Amino acid sequence: MSEARESGGAPKKAPMREVLAEAAFQLFLERGFERTTVDDIVARAGVGRRSFFRYFPSKEDAVFPDHESCLADMTAFLGAASDERDAVDVVCDGARIVLRLYAANPEFSVQRYRLTREVPGLRTYELSVVRRYERTLAGYLRRRWDGAADGALRAEVVAASVVAAHNNGLRTWLRSGGTGDAEVAVDHALELVRHVWGETNGAASAGPDEDVVVMVASKGAPMWRVLQQVESALRND
Amino acid sequence: MSEARESGGAPKKAPMREVLAEAAFQLFLERGFERTTVDDIVARAGVGRRSFFRYFPSKEDAVFPDHESCLADMTAFLGAASDERDAVDVVCDGARIVLRLYAANPEFSVQRYRLTREVPGLRTYELSVVRRYERTLAGYLRRRWDGAADGALRAEVVAASVVAAHNNGLRTWLRSGGTGDAEVAVDHALELVRHVWGETNGAASAGPDEDVVVMVASKGAPMWRVLQQVESALRND
Repeated sequence: MSEARESGGAPKKAPMREVLAEAAFQLFLERGFERTTVDDIVARAGVGRRSFFRYFPSKEDAVFPDHESCLADMTAFLGAASDERDAVDVVCDGARIVLRLYAANPEFSVQRYRLTREVPGLRTYELSVVRRYERTLAGYLRRRWDGAADGALRAEVVAASVVAAHNNGLRTWLRSGGTGDAEVAVDHALELVRHVWGETNGAASAGPDEDVVVMVASKGAPMWRVLQQVESALRND
Repeated sequence: MSEARESGGAPKKAPMREVLAEAAFQLFLERGFERTTVDDIVARAGVGRRSFFRYFPSKEDAVFPDHESCLADMTAFLGAASDERDAVDVVCDGARIVLRLYAANPEFSVQRYRLTREVPGLRTYELSVVRRYERTLAGYLRRRWDGAADGALRAEVVAASVVAAHNNGLRTWLRSGGTGDAEVAVDHALELVRHVWGETNGAASAGPDEDVVVMVASKGAPMWRVLQQVESALRND
């Protein structure tokens, strides 16, 4: 069955790509990543060797088949976000796009997580992917904070914080075997970053600048706890 | 000249290792990283092929010859740090150990930075190294915040923030061609993280808990600016 026939003219790429990724992943689980060759994969998928490289530059790419489109989704989301929104809220929502990719297929995500822990080459590949998400989020924040004091610095630190928080929540869920609600773990983690770095913390629509809040804190209190009090005061006042 | 003779008995590893790293780096600059083979490197260094792999598992490792010992220094520093100190201050100081490695040799650091920008394999290698520093810092913070609410989460977010701030300062200096004071750029960047995440912010020795500070902030102010005010109030009261 030709792809052209299947889709009535234009090549329809998704199915073949999925067949290859599925075959590759099954073989990685059965034989291990290193011992599986591209020849094994195309034999299992019933296609020619060149088909594999048409869809995936390397074996590693076949383990993470969805990140390119997820990065594109994130970029599109950030590009369409209103500048009226808190920039930190926007990047937190951007990170949630990645979460939903994992949460949509818990069994696959958990198996891949375990496979990645065992194969150094996959861990390195994953680091590169994570870095690309981080750069995408940082690029958005740099634009939003262009001209602000330390705008570029804050953009990189906040993007790194969002990614670290997201990954902490995601890994908690993955380590639990993908049971429970992934979004709850990630929302909780992102909330910490939003509290600390958010621009408005829910006070965006809270009236004019002359509104004031008086905050009393113990001098020896940890800074993050002081901050939670300030945030709570700003929100509930 | 045998190594054993040179050091009077026990093998003396550092000089040969440095000779190889130096030869490798010169060749990478002259011919490019990809087009330089291990055979080229050992020929330039005047040693046998097996000598190279005795010191470096791969060509990539020869580009970053000092990170293993730097990681060991960081681990030792964190292990020896007093638990009386603000944990965030300690990890900021830990990050400065990496900075000093770069600042000790500006010309080499800048050339390597440029080379790394051009070679994807080196960028990936660098990501792995950065991740190891981040995990080392996070491991320290996890221990310090063991049992605290969201301790492990905060440890990962703060470690990522410290690394991002450090790298922002370091890259600013590298992009400037290694002119000026690297420590100033990094100190400024780390200060942002210390302000936001530090536990005590200079108030550690500021008297008993019943001391209080009253802070007035505009309700629409960005959170990080509110925080700076709080920090300033706690320090100057």
